[in-house]
Amino acid sequence: LDSGTGREVQRMLQSLSPQSIAQLLESSPPRIRQVLWKLIDREVEGEVLQELADDVKAQILSIMDTEEMVAIMEGLNADDIADILQQLPERVMAEVLSAMSESDRQRVQSVLAYDEETAGGLMDTDTVSVRPNLTLDVVLRYLRRHEKLPKSTDNLFVVSRQDRFIGLLPLTRLLTADPSVTVREIMTTDVEPIPADMPDYEVAQLFAKYDWITAPVVDENNRLLGRITIDDVVDVIREDADHSLMSLAGLDEEEDTFAPIKRTAPRRSIWLGINLLTALLASWVINLFQGTIDKVVALAVLMPIVASMGGVAGSQTLTVIIRGMALGQVGRSNLRWLLSREIGTGALNGILWSSVMGGIAALWFGDLRIAWIIIAAMAINLVTAAFAGTLLPVALRALRIDPALAGGVVLTTVTDVVGFLSFLGLATWFFA
Amino acid sequence: LDSGTGREVQRMLQSLSPQSIAQLLESSPPRIRQVLWKLIDREVEGEVLQELADDVKAQILSIMDTEEMVAIMEGLNADDIADILQQLPERVMAEVLSAMSESDRQRVQSVLAYDEETAGGLMDTDTVSVRPNLTLDVVLRYLRRHEKLPKSTDNLFVVSRQDRFIGLLPLTRLLTADPSVTVREIMTTDVEPIPADMPDYEVAQLFAKYDWITAPVVDENNRLLGRITIDDVVDVIREDADHSLMSLAGLDEEEDTFAPIKRTAPRRSIWLGINLLTALLASWVINLFQGTIDKVVALAVLMPIVASMGGVAGSQTLTVIIRGMALGQVGRSNLRWLLSREIGTGALNGILWSSVMGGIAALWFGDLRIAWIIIAAMAINLVTAAFAGTLLPVALRALRIDPALAGGVVLTTVTDVVGFLSFLGLATWFFA
Repeated sequence: LDSGTGREVQRMLQSLSPQSIAQLLESSPPRIRQVLWKLIDREVEGEVLQELADDVKAQILSIMDTEEMVAIMEGLNADDIADILQQLPERVMAEVLSAMSESDRQRVQSVLAYDEETAGGLMDTDTVSVRPNLTLDVVLRYLRRHEKLPKSTDNLFVVSRQDRFIGLLPLTRLLTADPSVTVREIMTTDVEPIPADMPDYEVAQLFAKYDWITAPVVDENNRLLGRITIDDVVDVIREDADHSLMSLAGLDEEEDTFAPIKRTAPRRSIWLGINLLTALLASWVINLFQGTIDKVVALAVLMPIVASMGGVAGSQTLTVIIRGMALGQVGRSNLRWLLSREIGTGALNGILWSSVMGGIAALWFGDLRIAWIIIAAMAINLVTAAFAGTLLPVALRALRIDPALAGGVVLTTVTDVVGFLSFLGLATWFFA
Repeated sequence: LDSGTGREVQRMLQSLSPQSIAQLLESSPPRIRQVLWKLIDREVEGEVLQELADDVKAQILSIMDTEEMVAIMEGLNADDIADILQQLPERVMAEVLSAMSESDRQRVQSVLAYDEETAGGLMDTDTVSVRPNLTLDVVLRYLRRHEKLPKSTDNLFVVSRQDRFIGLLPLTRLLTADPSVTVREIMTTDVEPIPADMPDYEVAQLFAKYDWITAPVVDENNRLLGRITIDDVVDVIREDADHSLMSLAGLDEEEDTFAPIKRTAPRRSIWLGINLLTALLASWVINLFQGTIDKVVALAVLMPIVASMGGVAGSQTLTVIIRGMALGQVGRSNLRWLLSREIGTGALNGILWSSVMGGIAALWFGDLRIAWIIIAAMAINLVTAAFAGTLLPVALRALRIDPALAGGVVLTTVTDVVGFLSFLGLATWFFA
């Protein structure tokens, strides 16, 4: 890419879909992004922008002025415009809003009124609704007066005169039913509309559970506000799934893969600082046993093994529980069962691998006492890891701390401290 | 739940949707699952079964006989039946297939012919197709002869007389266009059909990129075989996203949260065994420096800090790169940029935190030599971690080893070995 002249690149970009251009931008370092952005056709800029991940979107917006932004947002859905505006500083957002047409502003503000991470923040406002007393024939004629229907429309929304949600009229039913029947006779009423303040992850669970394509969003009076479409839900699902992975390493799931050093370094630095504190705690424990180590240096050689095995076993348990919690499977009713399963697994594997390690230690250092010490310490640490890995995420959630973010650090601290304490403690007692 | 009598539970289950029953089963330990399953109404058993995660599905199937299975599969889509059959042992699968009606068997076998993790394995076969030369009026009358259209239908497929895929006719366009025009005049032809052998993760990327609801699947001669719907793609997206999280802890993304000990313990045990080997390698490195540790016991106290900080920094880099690879963003063209960003970040944070740690070490042990040694060793290890975290996943992928599965272990081995080696090596040189 770097070697192509501007015009060649421009021609290449013209042959790509907005989605492909967005992916290309996301896969490029920041400086190349800005060059590429300038070469994109004006007409597709809006569509490309709306496809970008939030972090990248913010970066592109930061090099635009208000006029450009307003021009770009023309023709986008209210929810996509709201998404873009939320990346802007308060002041710029107000400027852009006031430069928009009255009707656009109203549509966008109705979405902006809701938190970004709720159903209201996910919805768009272009719904097609019909009254229950119409015949299908009338509905069909009404639809034909539209130039086109909103993207992904699979249901019409049936509403009362006061715009209250009554039911759904699937297009597939509209197309197969007798045109002389009324909407009321064939509409589906067993779908609960989504309240605008429902958190987005609950919306995603509903979509995944019921295989919805679109779903109606209502206010507290059951008045139809808009609709949520599956493509926005897929983004939520993907981000939620990413959340546990990224958080366990102290990262933000929305972080741009190509964020520059000045953005990457500080966030990671905090995480390293927290880890340094916990590592110091482990060192402090070791320090208590300086005398014993001085007597038997082999202990220093073997002690990281005890800590490391506990850490690995604990992180396996932790990952299973955190994922189970994200899937809504782990609750008070089955926690006891999970805990006993984990402790059973930890004990079994603890006996197996500590025996193996005991054998190795006996052969390596020719000292049966060291073998027995490491067997006991490893078994203790693996069972502790099972306990901590199961109960920690549940306790953190009860304290309203994100288990995916804090779980890993706290867990390693526990397995390190217990590992060193049991191994060196037992050794001190044996060799005293 | 345990305390309710059978009849009460049965009444409760009758009030739940098949999706909710499936979630309840997934959230229950194995023994309770079997009790619950027996209380479910016959008519919804098939629907519940198809909603279950693979592992749970296999468990429920293992307590059924062939007759029950055939009865349950009646009325399910070909792709869902294929999903269920693939959970069965070869012999049982053949039995069930031969007990099915001829037409059902053919439909199912057309899906079974493809690998589970390809477009062919994801598709179902109930498509509605039309010829390009028909007028919309004829299409509308044709549709009205159907009792109902397949779920999630958003497009009709336009095919030639030889069943070759030509284009899409969106229902929304069918409803708004003039009924006297022909299909050919308003169909969309800019959508590439999906080849049946495309891997499922590529299918998922296409759906996410183009916001599709359904997409046509064709064979190598462009003949229409079936369609893929977004609900099955959402499952693929969710599993793919889970894959990195679970693999980094040596777990299987399809593992049932409530798998019994006899299933959990062996798999985790292998992972612990591999970790024991790498921990022994680190111990062997420490062992080389027994003499130095014997002289300066403070080294044993501080050495885990160097290894641990490298491990954390490395896993941050590794996670970012693995996620970037899963999103298709990391390739040869931007690897050099990423590597320099990671090394820059590692060096910056290395200087910051190693200085802090140097200060702490100087105060703690009152020995400036130890301070300088830990500063140098930590900085070396953090930069090594950046190197290894970036290049390891790329190298593993080139070797066709799953980076998410192997990356974490190899990385920790590197940061442990380099951490101990640099810290104790420098110390030996300083204190010699």
